[in-house]
Amino acid sequence: MAAAAPPPPPTPAAITLPDPTPTGQPVFARVRLGNASDVPHIHKLIHQMAVFERLSHHFSATEASLSSTLFTSPPFQSFTIFILEVSPNPFPPTIPPHPLFSPITQIAPLDLPINDPEKEAFRSHNSGGLDVVIAGFVLFFPNFSTFLGKPGFYVEDLFVRDCYRRKGFGKMLLSAVAAQAVKMGYGRVEWVVLDWNVNAIKFYEEMGAKVLQEWRICRLTGEALQAYGSAHN
Amino acid sequence: MAAAAPPPPPTPAAITLPDPTPTGQPVFARVRLGNASDVPHIHKLIHQMAVFERLSHHFSATEASLSSTLFTSPPFQSFTIFILEVSPNPFPPTIPPHPLFSPITQIAPLDLPINDPEKEAFRSHNSGGLDVVIAGFVLFFPNFSTFLGKPGFYVEDLFVRDCYRRKGFGKMLLSAVAAQAVKMGYGRVEWVVLDWNVNAIKFYEEMGAKVLQEWRICRLTGEALQAYGSAHN
Repeated sequence: MAAAAPPPPPTPAAITLPDPTPTGQPVFARVRLGNASDVPHIHKLIHQMAVFERLSHHFSATEASLSSTLFTSPPFQSFTIFILEVSPNPFPPTIPPHPLFSPITQIAPLDLPINDPEKEAFRSHNSGGLDVVIAGFVLFFPNFSTFLGKPGFYVEDLFVRDCYRRKGFGKMLLSAVAAQAVKMGYGRVEWVVLDWNVNAIKFYEEMGAKVLQEWRICRLTGEALQAYGSAHN
Repeated sequence: MAAAAPPPPPTPAAITLPDPTPTGQPVFARVRLGNASDVPHIHKLIHQMAVFERLSHHFSATEASLSSTLFTSPPFQSFTIFILEVSPNPFPPTIPPHPLFSPITQIAPLDLPINDPEKEAFRSHNSGGLDVVIAGFVLFFPNFSTFLGKPGFYVEDLFVRDCYRRKGFGKMLLSAVAAQAVKMGYGRVEWVVLDWNVNAIKFYEEMGAKVLQEWRICRLTGEALQAYGSAHN
């Protein structure tokens, strides 16, 4: 993870210090496994993502549809969610350990306190009385490479709420998935990006990913998919 | 799927009918669930696919790596394989039924008997004394659309052996996955295609699929992936 850039002087009149030690508020960040109690927050995050991508007309997920399809199998066997939490205080080790995953914590030294206008709506159920807010998530699941003869992870969605962007949290979430893949002996982590999103492509390439230029996704959905339902039922 | 055409006359000496009914040998085709006993055949099929795609230098799957990663969870929950079998004889209903899937059978009226030079190597373990040969497979697994709030299927590989191509068997396998998605209430079936493979793209579009032109696959693998292993372990 890249360290945060040194902060600007606190006031224009302040002496510029030679030491780049951040003087602002530290933010404690934690990546933990999501669970069924996170569904209302996950639903809100997905909706924000749809709005951000100007695709909210394609958004039809409900809390009920997410509840019936997510968290129905153990983590990493199928759809898995990592939740990003932030707090002005260190995280106590209150989460029961999972045999395959321990929460990842990190301190982000920021130059300014983050003003989160939706703090109350995203307060974490796992806060244990502390000031813990859900800032983002990543949803991933196993895929399979027949050539490698082993699984990988496919990252379906990664989202960080507006006021927490450009602080390294997206990289923290994606790195957590990559680290988990290595830990489990998996061969690949894959995801997709829009070809015109040059900033995202640059970011991913700097993380070590290759962008496959020749492959195109084929999608069978809606009525064209439903037409196959009558043939074999 | 189109309904199977009526069978040809029983002997070559029969009167030639004015309608375009094929006069050759019918081939009975069946799509069934793969299981652990299919691994040696699946391994051979994947190897043939790698050779066909001129990517055999990327092929490192072994029977052991496939055995340890496939068929470790119930069908459709994770990696799932449909096997395509062909036979000159009708299939007896010898496969125990699965609650979520019944084998799909179809009669392909061909104008010539298929000369399969690898018949012995691909003889099916489920043949029950009949002349049943494994002709192809499709490997797929659940993916997830956060916008739809429900799963879909991702088709990782579809392969039909050389002598069985251009006979509708690829479509039979892909249609079986689509039908299963509809049966399970899933929202999408997705796969990838190379952008220069115009014949495949035409075939998929005729099946009702849309080719997404703007999305690119990002892949983190090899040493670039391994580098994330040390960060959080």
